[in-house]
Amino acid sequence: MPVIDFWYEFASTYSYPAAMRIEALAAAQGVELRWRPFLLGPLFAEQGWRDSPFNVYPVKGRYMWRDLQRLCDALKLPLARPDPFPQNSLLAARVALALPDAKRAAFSRAVYAAEFGQGRTISDPASLAELLRAIGEDAEATLARAQAPDNKAALKAACEQAQALGLPGAPCFVTSDKEVFWGNDRAEQALDWALRL
Amino acid sequence: MPVIDFWYEFASTYSYPAAMRIEALAAAQGVELRWRPFLLGPLFAEQGWRDSPFNVYPVKGRYMWRDLQRLCDALKLPLARPDPFPQNSLLAARVALALPDAKRAAFSRAVYAAEFGQGRTISDPASLAELLRAIGEDAEATLARAQAPDNKAALKAACEQAQALGLPGAPCFVTSDKEVFWGNDRAEQALDWALRL
Repeated sequence: MPVIDFWYEFASTYSYPAAMRIEALAAAQGVELRWRPFLLGPLFAEQGWRDSPFNVYPVKGRYMWRDLQRLCDALKLPLARPDPFPQNSLLAARVALALPDAKRAAFSRAVYAAEFGQGRTISDPASLAELLRAIGEDAEATLARAQAPDNKAALKAACEQAQALGLPGAPCFVTSDKEVFWGNDRAEQALDWALRL
Repeated sequence: MPVIDFWYEFASTYSYPAAMRIEALAAAQGVELRWRPFLLGPLFAEQGWRDSPFNVYPVKGRYMWRDLQRLCDALKLPLARPDPFPQNSLLAARVALALPDAKRAAFSRAVYAAEFGQGRTISDPASLAELLRAIGEDAEATLARAQAPDNKAALKAACEQAQALGLPGAPCFVTSDKEVFWGNDRAEQALDWALRL
C-alpha cells in the first residue's frame, strides 16, 4: 500500500485545512497516511526568523489570512484567529507524538478545530487535557507521557528528520522516495506521486 | 465579460508556467486577460530583501526548483536555470509595457521560454531585440519606446499599483473587485472568482 508522511505543525495556518481534509483524500485513493507532528521553530531559527514569517512580513501575512479564509470557505471550515498568533505548539506536538498512531489523527484535528476553528489557545495543559478527554483519552496519563524524556527526544528527532528532508515549511507531504510536497494545495499532487511509485 | 489582471515579473520562476498556461485557461472560461508586467524589486526591498528570497533562504530555494521541475514536467514545459538567477528584469518589463496589448502576451511568453525554457539571459538589449524580431516587432523602435521617460514612468506607476494592491509576490491574478490570488497554482481559483462576480 502506498504511504505518505503528513508533516504538520500545530501553529501553522495552512496545516489546518490540510489536517481536516487529508485523511478522506488519502483513504479515497488507497494511500496510507502517517501523521508526523513537528516544530517549525528550529527550521525557522536557521533562516533567522524568531517569529512566524507571516508576522515578520506583514504583506505576506495579510495575504495568507485572506487566502486561508477563501480556502476555509470553500471547504466549509470555520476560521478564527488564535491570539496570540502563532500559538506555542510545543506541548501539543509532544502530546500528539505521545498518543498511539490510531488516536493521533483525531487529537490533531481536535487541536486544529479548537485553535483555528474557534480561535482558542492550545498552548497550556488544561486546554489540551480538555481536547484529550473529548476524544476519550486519559488526559493526565497522556500529558505525563508527553513530557517524559523519551517522548521529548522523539519529537527532537522528528524535527531533525524534517530538517534532513529539507522541509521548507508546513504542512508537507513526503512520499516513500523522499519526494517533498509543501503546502495544503499540494496534497493531491503528493497522492498522485505516491500512487505512481 | 469578466476580466483578470495577470501580474507577472520576468525574474519570477513561478510566473513562467503561469504565463505559458493562463491564456488558454482564461479563453476556455470566457475571461478577458490583461497582462500586467511589474517588478518585485521594490516590494522585496520593503521586506528587507536585496535578492530573491529563493537565494536568501536556500531551503526554500532548493524546494522551489524541485517543485518547479515537477510542475514543468506535468505541463510538458522545458526547464533550465538562467545564470545568474534571478535575471535583471527591468528592461524586459519596460519592453513588455511599451508593446501594444495585442503583442505583450506573445513577447512575454517568448521571454519566459528563452529564460526558463532555455536558460538564456534576458537582461540585455541584444537578447530582447532578438525576441522582438522573432514575434515580428521592430526591435530598435520598441527598445527606444521602452526607454522613453513616459514608459519608465508607466512601469513605476504599475509597481506602485502592485504595492497598493498588496501583492505579496508573483505571479498574481487580480479580479475586478481587487481580490488577489498569488501563485501559478491559484489561476483556476481566480478564474472561478472572476466568473462569479
